[in-house]
Amino acid sequence: MFELSIPLDATGPMWSTSSTRVRPMHVMTVLPDQWGPEMHGTFGTDDWLFLPLQSGTQWDSLAHVGYDEYFYNGVPMSEVNAGGAARNAVASILPGVVGRGVLLDIPRLMGVDRLDGGQPITPADLEAAEQAQGVRLTTVDVLLLRTGWRAKALQDGWQGWHDVEPGLTLECAEWLHEREVSAVASDNHGIEVLPTTASGPVGHPLHFVVIRDMGMPLGEIFDLEALADDCAEDGQYEVFFSAPPLRLPRAVGSPISPIAVK
Amino acid sequence: MFELSIPLDATGPMWSTSSTRVRPMHVMTVLPDQWGPEMHGTFGTDDWLFLPLQSGTQWDSLAHVGYDEYFYNGVPMSEVNAGGAARNAVASILPGVVGRGVLLDIPRLMGVDRLDGGQPITPADLEAAEQAQGVRLTTVDVLLLRTGWRAKALQDGWQGWHDVEPGLTLECAEWLHEREVSAVASDNHGIEVLPTTASGPVGHPLHFVVIRDMGMPLGEIFDLEALADDCAEDGQYEVFFSAPPLRLPRAVGSPISPIAVK
Amino acid sequence: MFELSIPLDATGPMWSTSSTRVRPMHVMTVLPDQWGPEMHGTFGTDDWLFLPLQSGTQWDSLAHVGYDEYFYNGVPMSEVNAGGAARNAVASILPGVVGRGVLLDIPRLMGVDRLDGGQPITPADLEAAEQAQGVRLTTVDVLLLRTGWRAKALQDGWQGWHDVEPGLTLECAEWLHEREVSAVASDNHGIEVLPTTASGPVGHPLHFVVIRDMGMPLGEIFDLEALADDCAEDGQYEVFFSAPPLRLPRAVGSPISPIAVK
Amino acid sequence: MFELSIPLDATGPMWSTSSTRVRPMHVMTVLPDQWGPEMHGTFGTDDWLFLPLQSGTQWDSLAHVGYDEYFYNGVPMSEVNAGGAARNAVASILPGVVGRGVLLDIPRLMGVDRLDGGQPITPADLEAAEQAQGVRLTTVDVLLLRTGWRAKALQDGWQGWHDVEPGLTLECAEWLHEREVSAVASDNHGIEVLPTTASGPVGHPLHFVVIRDMGMPLGEIFDLEALADDCAEDGQYEVFFSAPPLRLPRAVGSPISPIAVK
Repeated sequence: MFELSIPLDATGPMWSTSSTRVRPMHVMTVLPDQWGPEMHGTFGTDDWLFLPLQSGTQWDSLAHVGYDEYFYNGVPMSEVNAGGAARNAVASILPGVVGRGVLLDIPRLMGVDRLDGGQPITPADLEAAEQAQGVRLTTVDVLLLRTGWRAKALQDGWQGWHDVEPGLTLECAEWLHEREVSAVASDNHGIEVLPTTASGPVGHPLHFVVIRDMGMPLGEIFDLEALADDCAEDGQYEVFFSAPPLRLPRAVGSPISPIAVK
Repeated sequence: MFELSIPLDATGPMWSTSSTRVRPMHVMTVLPDQWGPEMHGTFGTDDWLFLPLQSGTQWDSLAHVGYDEYFYNGVPMSEVNAGGAARNAVASILPGVVGRGVLLDIPRLMGVDRLDGGQPITPADLEAAEQAQGVRLTTVDVLLLRTGWRAKALQDGWQGWHDVEPGLTLECAEWLHEREVSAVASDNHGIEVLPTTASGPVGHPLHFVVIRDMGMPLGEIFDLEALADDCAEDGQYEVFFSAPPLRLPRAVGSPISPIAVK
Repeated sequence: MFELSIPLDATGPMWSTSSTRVRPMHVMTVLPDQWGPEMHGTFGTDDWLFLPLQSGTQWDSLAHVGYDEYFYNGVPMSEVNAGGAARNAVASILPGVVGRGVLLDIPRLMGVDRLDGGQPITPADLEAAEQAQGVRLTTVDVLLLRTGWRAKALQDGWQGWHDVEPGLTLECAEWLHEREVSAVASDNHGIEVLPTTASGPVGHPLHFVVIRDMGMPLGEIFDLEALADDCAEDGQYEVFFSAPPLRLPRAVGSPISPIAVK
Repeated sequence: MFELSIPLDATGPMWSTSSTRVRPMHVMTVLPDQWGPEMHGTFGTDDWLFLPLQSGTQWDSLAHVGYDEYFYNGVPMSEVNAGGAARNAVASILPGVVGRGVLLDIPRLMGVDRLDGGQPITPADLEAAEQAQGVRLTTVDVLLLRTGWRAKALQDGWQGWHDVEPGLTLECAEWLHEREVSAVASDNHGIEVLPTTASGPVGHPLHFVVIRDMGMPLGEIFDLEALADDCAEDGQYEVFFSAPPLRLPRAVGSPISPIAVK
């Protein structure tokens, strides 16, 4: 059994305070020494969490990005307003993201510890990894994509981690579509290579194609290190994968605690 | 596949504002109409959640209750302070609560839609349910205890729901220990019968014995209705159960999105 | 010196959890017993507040309500979006709401402890109070309007307090305009009589006329009881009034701690 | 009339996410485009604020620091627990911090734009400023201490701003006591010189003496630039000062919107 999440706390990747995504805040609201003699020696505790829903290991829902006035499935942009996502919310992923997961370990394929920022992963790379590992992604599988970018954060800290990253090229969208993959989860922060290698003015083109056009949720900021080591050891890259989002009926993202069972 | 959570939003059970547990608050921080022409027609959204960690379907960690100055495993009460739980935090449950779950459907055993507030469930009831259902709880199983109390909330609303409930008697602690059950999850708010049928001045005695003495996390406010219907239909009460908490390194509770696979 | 605010805490008027306005939440983030020997016996504390900005004694800014696609001063409704109020924000009230305040004590005029829910206050009532008290509102004065509705909450609690209230009729808008009053603050929750006595389908018509058309901020949920007693005693109804909002550059409301000096 | 606060928003001084003090978060909870035809063209907005209470222009209450197990006035440290400050809370400052304020402009005295980090201000400096300005602090006056450190943040940003600062030496505590000053407010983040010039192991010794021993609240992170320019122009350094904290019955700090009237 492997835990694929990073800690959801003030050590998280949202190191900058310049945006609306800050680190999760945990506060205690009830502590043991508040209780008096009416409790006969017993005591309890309680706590709160305040978090940007995409501030750690998480799903992007289909209400997270869109273009040309629509989200996935023809949902008008006005359906996501201050009241939340009336459609395509993260709870609508439930209970789908439970099933076969296949790890593709690209750094290991390339004989490196981790890829570099800006290093593209192409459909040919994905297929080479499949062949090297002896697996093949197929209908409703979840692709667990290791780039090694999580390891970079462990070594160097989070600062600068969001500026660039290794990841999928735009061409991979078609490949994911052909294989009928149900979701992609990765150890970087946005699945796709940054800066993008695609032409055109859009900074994160794969997001828009995969989420808005193909209806595929993206799992980000996973920790795949321990799982990858184990897979390399036993040559077994298939897992039972489970990462249900919280039942947030109007949210556009959700923290998750994904597990892989071998 | 069955989803065992209730919605984690402003419809939740914390209807009163008289305590530190209020309903989860979801707020949108980025909306589609904030994006300008520099985005070339693309747009994104983002959101925050503010929640008492025990305000919906959730785990009580081993740092949630204690007595006589200690939490489970001899952890002094001072180890849970304003900085959170230095030990016994909810993340320490990971990845344990994944494995065989067994539903015991007590209302169905008793031929009623749901039990009443204050109605006790005894070890004899648990064994009668096992016999009627043809299952037996054993080492590391998770007991999924249906009392029908969730159905009451669906019918009558949450007001008053916390004042009383059907649930386990204090004697069940020993039964759970003998069977080496790893965790109990129920569709009520506190597992145990309220008001308690035990003698003595403590209001929730089972909590202290099970969590503090036995080291067993408690899963509360589950929705077991659909699963119970399905089990009654096919006579199969065993499931693969998965309910990992969020990786909150210092929290005393965690919202969860539990699933059961048959 | 008189303090005109109610406590900004979990005893506040937002007793219902059915809306986005809940009670302010105060949480301690640092406590004395967290500090170790490196502090040489010294210790510090720290805390957070989470609050709907209009959950207690507060100003409604000119970005709080509008109609027919505009806020005050021709600001398009799109200028208030998920990023906050780009114009008319509550900080733009600064430093204006400091100057002469005049208390009009309507219950005292009418010889009652407090007005009833739904009881209208007309321009004639305001002028009768002026005459009885020997004061006259004039340019840039702040009207401190006592209805006694705060006293009702102290007696009966907050439940139901928002459903009805005594307050100004729609006709008072013109009166306030003629007198060139700069702001109105009251001890009820919405200044105007509820249910409204005005014809037409709009529930809070005075809000829209006063805030959107006249550019007048509204101060709500004040505590005028002690001040009113003092004024009745010495017959002096003029005060130096100061209630600057917090410098919130994009907010539509602000908690305040108003004072009156006689 | 002068506004002495800095913006209470995400541009604030808490630039680091490594502590429990982060920048205030403002979120919109109701927006104009959420309203439908039932509103007949009218619309409203609403918002929330989440803030460390000492994340901007603010008062340190007498429950903020202590030593040797007590806060000011013999309040045991256990009186400030997860439920907040049972005594010495910031609301207990009300309505006191309203009255005569005297600006002492130390950089102008020394003929510089601003003091440097680590530069001490001694009792002799305070008296020299009094003489140069023709004012004298006396019973219940508020000392408004300009160091120019706010100007540094405007020039260089907040990073590093908390590491050092110009400010009062420990000897000033006795001077403040003799003059019977009621409070000190400054344009730096902690009133006293950092690193401290006092001997001994305590990092902020003036805090403990002034707050815990003398019962004097400290006002921090004020903006005194415009007021200082005006005072230099007309030679008038006395103001009517008003900075009531929010009525937070259990908080240890409070954001404020201080004003000075000349």
